[in-house]
Amino acid sequence: MLRTHTCGELTINDLNKDVTLTGWVQKSRDLGGMTFVDMRDRYGITQLTFNSDDNAELRAQARELGREFVIRVAGKVIERSNKNLKMNTGEIEIKVAKLELLNAAKLPPFLIEDETDGGDDLRLKYRYLDLRRNPVRNNLVLRHKMAQEVRKYLDGLDFIEVETPVLIKSTPEGARDFVVPSRMNPGEFYALPQSPQTFKQLLMVSGFDRYFQIVKCFRDEDLRADRQPEFTQIDCEMAFIEQEDILNVFEGLIRQLFKNVKGVELAEVPRMQYADAMRLYGSDKPDTRFDMQFVELNDIVKGVGFPVFDSAELVIGINAKGCAEYTRKQIDELTDFIKRPQIGATGLIYLRHGADGSLKSSVDKFYNEDELKKWSAAFNTEPGDLILIMAGQTDKVRKQLSELRLEMGNRLGLRDKNVYAPLWVLDFPLLEWDEESQRYHAMHHPFTSPKPEDIAMLDTNPGQVRANAYDMVVNGTEVGGGSIRIHDRDLQSLMFKHLGFTVEEAQKQFGFLLDAFEYGAPPHGGIAFGFDRLVSIFAGLDSIRDVIAFPKNNSGRDVMIDSPSTIADEQLKELKIKTTV
Amino acid sequence: MLRTHTCGELTINDLNKDVTLTGWVQKSRDLGGMTFVDMRDRYGITQLTFNSDDNAELRAQARELGREFVIRVAGKVIERSNKNLKMNTGEIEIKVAKLELLNAAKLPPFLIEDETDGGDDLRLKYRYLDLRRNPVRNNLVLRHKMAQEVRKYLDGLDFIEVETPVLIKSTPEGARDFVVPSRMNPGEFYALPQSPQTFKQLLMVSGFDRYFQIVKCFRDEDLRADRQPEFTQIDCEMAFIEQEDILNVFEGLIRQLFKNVKGVELAEVPRMQYADAMRLYGSDKPDTRFDMQFVELNDIVKGVGFPVFDSAELVIGINAKGCAEYTRKQIDELTDFIKRPQIGATGLIYLRHGADGSLKSSVDKFYNEDELKKWSAAFNTEPGDLILIMAGQTDKVRKQLSELRLEMGNRLGLRDKNVYAPLWVLDFPLLEWDEESQRYHAMHHPFTSPKPEDIAMLDTNPGQVRANAYDMVVNGTEVGGGSIRIHDRDLQSLMFKHLGFTVEEAQKQFGFLLDAFEYGAPPHGGIAFGFDRLVSIFAGLDSIRDVIAFPKNNSGRDVMIDSPSTIADEQLKELKIKTTV
Repeated sequence: MLRTHTCGELTINDLNKDVTLTGWVQKSRDLGGMTFVDMRDRYGITQLTFNSDDNAELRAQARELGREFVIRVAGKVIERSNKNLKMNTGEIEIKVAKLELLNAAKLPPFLIEDETDGGDDLRLKYRYLDLRRNPVRNNLVLRHKMAQEVRKYLDGLDFIEVETPVLIKSTPEGARDFVVPSRMNPGEFYALPQSPQTFKQLLMVSGFDRYFQIVKCFRDEDLRADRQPEFTQIDCEMAFIEQEDILNVFEGLIRQLFKNVKGVELAEVPRMQYADAMRLYGSDKPDTRFDMQFVELNDIVKGVGFPVFDSAELVIGINAKGCAEYTRKQIDELTDFIKRPQIGATGLIYLRHGADGSLKSSVDKFYNEDELKKWSAAFNTEPGDLILIMAGQTDKVRKQLSELRLEMGNRLGLRDKNVYAPLWVLDFPLLEWDEESQRYHAMHHPFTSPKPEDIAMLDTNPGQVRANAYDMVVNGTEVGGGSIRIHDRDLQSLMFKHLGFTVEEAQKQFGFLLDAFEYGAPPHGGIAFGFDRLVSIFAGLDSIRDVIAFPKNNSGRDVMIDSPSTIADEQLKELKIKTTV
Repeated sequence: MLRTHTCGELTINDLNKDVTLTGWVQKSRDLGGMTFVDMRDRYGITQLTFNSDDNAELRAQARELGREFVIRVAGKVIERSNKNLKMNTGEIEIKVAKLELLNAAKLPPFLIEDETDGGDDLRLKYRYLDLRRNPVRNNLVLRHKMAQEVRKYLDGLDFIEVETPVLIKSTPEGARDFVVPSRMNPGEFYALPQSPQTFKQLLMVSGFDRYFQIVKCFRDEDLRADRQPEFTQIDCEMAFIEQEDILNVFEGLIRQLFKNVKGVELAEVPRMQYADAMRLYGSDKPDTRFDMQFVELNDIVKGVGFPVFDSAELVIGINAKGCAEYTRKQIDELTDFIKRPQIGATGLIYLRHGADGSLKSSVDKFYNEDELKKWSAAFNTEPGDLILIMAGQTDKVRKQLSELRLEMGNRLGLRDKNVYAPLWVLDFPLLEWDEESQRYHAMHHPFTSPKPEDIAMLDTNPGQVRANAYDMVVNGTEVGGGSIRIHDRDLQSLMFKHLGFTVEEAQKQFGFLLDAFEYGAPPHGGIAFGFDRLVSIFAGLDSIRDVIAFPKNNSGRDVMIDSPSTIADEQLKELKIKTTV
């Protein structure tokens, strides 16, 4: 090695050692006849000193060093006069005897410090420089640790990591596929997997029993703020199990990750029915770091002559504790918030439970004090509370109030990034109606098993059929989801029928799986965690982009390498394709 | 769990336990009033017994079970009368009290036994059944263990696993890329990586210092017997190192793998110059499980009037020890072997050193006994040896004799799959001349550093420039290769120039890397191991196909899922491409 030590390891215990270090010039400063250089590598920062009295030439050399120059120094570890006890290496410095320039550096386009002055676009273009910054690098180190920990846990439970293919077959279900033209099979295409779903099920048919894979998956979707065309899943499957087994094994995984990576001991993960999550939080991924559950008011508020409530399918509200003193302006802000197009509500009703015990609503014209007391009782308010109420069509108003609830959580400081509230949401609907295609879609995917007791409803009331499907939610974010799968050819065929496949289409697309179910398929089920998302939660970040080494921008471009790009005509010709742009 | 134990764990120590097992019916047989069923899962086989005297109905149920039916049984562990001490579970059986059919099975298209009657094509089509067979499953279990061990070793040395992108940019160097049309950027394409080469170098520029990744790579090449369009690399890179550091770290990896996975303690890995490997074995990946080095005979055999030798650039031979008694027929076989089109030699000369001490050659017409004694001395033959000699153009004849050497190794049983001979081959040429394009190509890749002392020759004698490049060879197979990289913009630009790039082309394709080298790039280098190949060697297999869960056939097809396939016109339209088949 070109070094004897890293820049993060020398301490007061190493005094007088002769050492050789390598790294980058973080910064340097002159002070009298001395030059001090902070040298950085992945492991830390060590201070170097050059003294004109000792070696004027060497010091002159040191003064030439610019930021981000790559250097190698040999010298002696000495005690520092001006100690920095915040740093591992803060009590020592290196009295340099020899300085070697390994590579010079142009002035970087932005500051390589924890707080940088570079904008998003610039930092993506020079991602290799952004990755030098501690916060960004630390995210990837965290990611590595989490991956190692996942593998340790699953390997310890006899799970086997099996690599499934990346060049697979395009299927019409789910999101849009990325496709890959085949040169050897002209006119035909591979697809990149949206998940290894069918392969992991086949591994269960093969008797592998306990499979996992940390694996890249691909979706050609229009990229919203926090989507990436390629993302990573912790993909898992087990055979000879029931839902309860999956929940236990993977609750164990999450708990071990929190414990060994974050040092956080989680309590048992609570479980909630999908229907309850929607009723109490208006969301299938409630943020349960705070309570503020929905209260339904139809029985109390209707029939008094207030047309907004009388005409609404559902009237619901939340209790914003301690907010009775909100000003008119603050209430207006909340109203504006829920009226934003992406939420689309029409109005907000409130009831203040004053510190003096008074009840004052924005609809006093319609409701007298006795009636408002019923409201207060329904929410169990205390003096100082503010009830916020919305009305409308059930699904819509729940979603709208869910947004308001989260906003109130933010305003009240109830969504601390260092508090973790995991939750299982269970018993998702099997199907959801799609207005555009006027047919049912699989809510999870077509291989999810309906609850046996609901199968009969598939013909009569498909929207009510519940699935053996479950999501793991942490702090209001879905981090994983899975289901018990169908392992019976007839039931799988029935599912395809309900999803609008003809028998021929089902056989063409998924014949291999239907066939496999006839050769001894065991009961099985599994789960997949969004690894990028999970890491971002552990890192306390809102975006997955910062836990990905080389992310793409919102147009799916890698602006660093300038990809995608045009390719040579020769390549197109060999592939027997033409672009029609 | 649906089971209390697996089919591999119950022994005589579990007598009288009440257990529940799940698995597949391996086979069953009737004997008097009894039915015996071998039940199999991933962990082993356990015998079940059903007795008409105890429960006639249950036994009748058992007699209905076919091969590969999936069942669940509850019963008691009892001692077996007819013990099978070869199996873990061979001293016990389960006296079944309850039998549940979890899934029936059609008769499989081939025997699911260690030795099967299924042909290659059938087994690929029903890969999920082939994966049930012990030898195939064991390969994947081995693969999992090796991957875990690789990660353990590298993590222990502070390497960080970083995921690099799969959707990257097509480059003209190297093999043909698979490309992916971009819907969001019409007319443009991503490429799938042939290796994460430039990204891992950028990670070094970022200061990551020690990177690895077990990663899928892709090459759209015509598939020879043992190539796959997608394959897996153990990809590694280090900064602030010299070649010696890489060799030491990764020799350590290989030794730890052999020790912890195979229980084999390797000696120190020998090192050989590329030039010596070519001279002594005619190959840059010599099988050093056996010696049989080439002996060069130009000085001894020329000038006596034998036109084949006189006109040849190089006359070389090997000593096949103990083969002096080869019959005419055996010699003819060898001659036929080297005359096969894929080897293309024209003839074979031999010299027998008889048990009686006599020397008898196939060219006695030209060489007298004194001269043959010189031959014998050059090879240091003993009575009983057979010298095999070939002549021709240096590069060609070396390759040809290399094939003959391996064939002789096979015939003499010198290539035992349970013996492991690893080897470092060092100092590869930087460039190789390509006849077709009439220019030099990078032998390793364009980022490989020339040896500093050879850089001057780049202009005068490019073919003689040696690279800081190295291969790890095991038993005649290249399992890994790498190099010290260029980290200087000017030298990298010079390399691109010598590879026929214009300045503009270099900037368009690799500008991001050239730019990165100007912002403080440290000295760095790395290596990549072919993981499939490495696993196949550990498994004692000739093909990588059997260590891949779902391989493609020689036309790049997955015959199980029937991929690649045509895609919908709607998809092509969205991607703005047309097929021209």
